[in-house]
Amino acid sequence: MKNPFDNLDKVLEHRVRLQIMSALVTNDAFDFSALKEMLNVTDGNLASHIKALEKEKYISVNKTFVDRKPNTKYKITEKGRNAFRKHLDALEAVIKQQK
Amino acid sequence: MKNPFDNLDKVLEHRVRLQIMSALVTNDAFDFSALKEMLNVTDGNLASHIKALEKEKYISVNKTFVDRKPNTKYKITEKGRNAFRKHLDALEAVIKQQK
Repeated sequence: MKNPFDNLDKVLEHRVRLQIMSALVTNDAFDFSALKEMLNVTDGNLASHIKALEKEKYISVNKTFVDRKPNTKYKITEKGRNAFRKHLDALEAVIKQQK
Repeated sequence: MKNPFDNLDKVLEHRVRLQIMSALVTNDAFDFSALKEMLNVTDGNLASHIKALEKEKYISVNKTFVDRKPNTKYKITEKGRNAFRKHLDALEAVIKQQK
């Protein structure tokens, strides 16, 4: 039998990243401050996790101006959606193996 | 509704730690080299994850000699067993929320 642990996605292991993806998969987009408020993390912490997800092309970043103030919106990509789904399936298999 | 992400155990987030706990919950004990072979990780990597689990008292360490050679065995503790179960339940709730 294939080891279900092998299918876990390293990039998505961290709780904060999982939570970002979870928020983006069910919503069209989030900006930085909304994510920050929801996840209750520091700016630096959130920025580093966003960077990791962006690097992997799991999320896309859209910078605009709203009322002349910079506004950054994050969206999940198709690649991110697939990776998130695959990671949840792997977690499910890990849990199943234990019970 | 309580956020299921809040119930995830930070100590158990990493795949290698989850896998160590998974091995120990279903087996009486493992020594270092058996764990290393099973998880396919470096000595240093495994040692650091074991240390984190030991610090949390999720596993206990028993050092003996076998044929005059040092032998270190790891066992899951009651605290570790409960934490592992709770973490899996939280993961299950996270997955359920997504599907």
